Amino acid sequence: MRNLKLTVEYLGTNYYGWQVLPDKPTVQGKLIETLKIILREDVKLIGASRTDAGVHAFGQVANFKTFSDIETERLKRALNGLLPPDIRVVEVEEVPLSFDARRSAEGKRYRYRIFNREVASPFEYKRAWFFPFPLDVERMREAARFFVGVHDFTTFSKTDRSQSVNPVREVNAVYVEKEGNVIEVTVYGRSFLRHMVRIMVATLVKVGEGKLDPDSVKLMMEAKDRKVAPFLAPPEGLYLEKVYYGDYPY
Amino acid sequence: MRNLKLTVEYLGTNYYGWQVLPDKPTVQGKLIETLKIILREDVKLIGASRTDAGVHAFGQVANFKTFSDIETERLKRALNGLLPPDIRVVEVEEVPLSFDARRSAEGKRYRYRIFNREVASPFEYKRAWFFPFPLDVERMREAARFFVGVHDFTTFSKTDRSQSVNPVREVNAVYVEKEGNVIEVTVYGRSFLRHMVRIMVATLVKVGEGKLDPDSVKLMMEAKDRKVAPFLAPPEGLYLEKVYYGDYPY
Repeated sequence: MRNLKLTVEYLGTNYYGWQVLPDKPTVQGKLIETLKIILREDVKLIGASRTDAGVHAFGQVANFKTFSDIETERLKRALNGLLPPDIRVVEVEEVPLSFDARRSAEGKRYRYRIFNREVASPFEYKRAWFFPFPLDVERMREAARFFVGVHDFTTFSKTDRSQSVNPVREVNAVYVEKEGNVIEVTVYGRSFLRHMVRIMVATLVKVGEGKLDPDSVKLMMEAKDRKVAPFLAPPEGLYLEKVYYGDYPY
Repeated sequence: MRNLKLTVEYLGTNYYGWQVLPDKPTVQGKLIETLKIILREDVKLIGASRTDAGVHAFGQVANFKTFSDIETERLKRALNGLLPPDIRVVEVEEVPLSFDARRSAEGKRYRYRIFNREVASPFEYKRAWFFPFPLDVERMREAARFFVGVHDFTTFSKTDRSQSVNPVREVNAVYVEKEGNVIEVTVYGRSFLRHMVRIMVATLVKVGEGKLDPDSVKLMMEAKDRKVAPFLAPPEGLYLEKVYYGDYPY
């Protein structure tokens, strides 16, 4: 048996997120369907991150086990020949059987893009959060520092009542950068709770607008209550940029 | 009477180019239709450049005359409220009656984007020319020099038999730059012939691939015959970036 690792880019606009859903197009669903055409078998495809509907990826990683002896380069070409243009497989590698795209991940990098100009951009439609009011990047940076470290992120996550998830997470770095009309928030973390990056970004935007003090992020974190940060940045600004395996810089 | 100047951005993917056509969506058509809803009059909208189907613009300029006394900021907001998201009006200014978006233009800057990687990008689909084979940027730069200056561009243009157009044009600069997987060709010129930038770029790509020598561009130019350069880069890589009025750097 072989274990194959896929590195996948996708524009999430036309998908109901990564994870397979009945009767809805999803990225995982499209990949499984296409792999079935090529390999003539149903594969169990494990993705590193369950990105939400409308979220994009530059470096999603997935793996599956197969008895097929197809060459990795041939599989890559076959996949890209059959997949729609908004999903591309940029790499196929054979990896040890122990590799699991989700469990073996050491850390992830997400990037959130905000298009900050009075008038929206035709080129950023569904590819960034269009935010027309002034944002103070320095204030956003100050606030971002409070996210770094090991914290209980209950305030900054969607409570998942079906499962008892440990709300303690480690965020290793948050960068806020501005270039032209685009503000990018880059977040490095070992793992993330549901909606965590989008709630963090929405909170930073409130700070950048002047509606919250940078320090208040610390108090909100301590409150451990989602109701004190009832914000959510839209999915179209979020990109899963990289999943790290053995090369996480933190 | 007032003369109003619009600066317009558009993603050309869903349009049959700038110029009005019967029963086909065009950018000029969409603008005229939207202006009619707001101003309740038919305007004669003059565009600086008749971009082809699928070509994009960061800085198309257009003007029209009107008796309306609508404030420029209000008109801008009304236009953006009614236009589809792939067309945005970024500026509305009142200009002297003598201003003509086409005739007053001193020069234009076009940018052509080539996505040069073995696998296409979901993010560059219809926004760049996907070219999967290696390109030698240094060779492309060498060849680009031969376009600069006042030349008869017959070889590098679509012959328009219906009109007798002067094929002599002045190209002021051509830059070839590479960043990551994107090669950008930037062209400054006083005015351009039909398909001129796309034929120039396709010729540079032939040079970059090693199928033509850089020097051959000079010979091709001297031939004054479209048949010696039967190439055409696809429209989706082309962006009208800026039209200059009194601020052309050459």
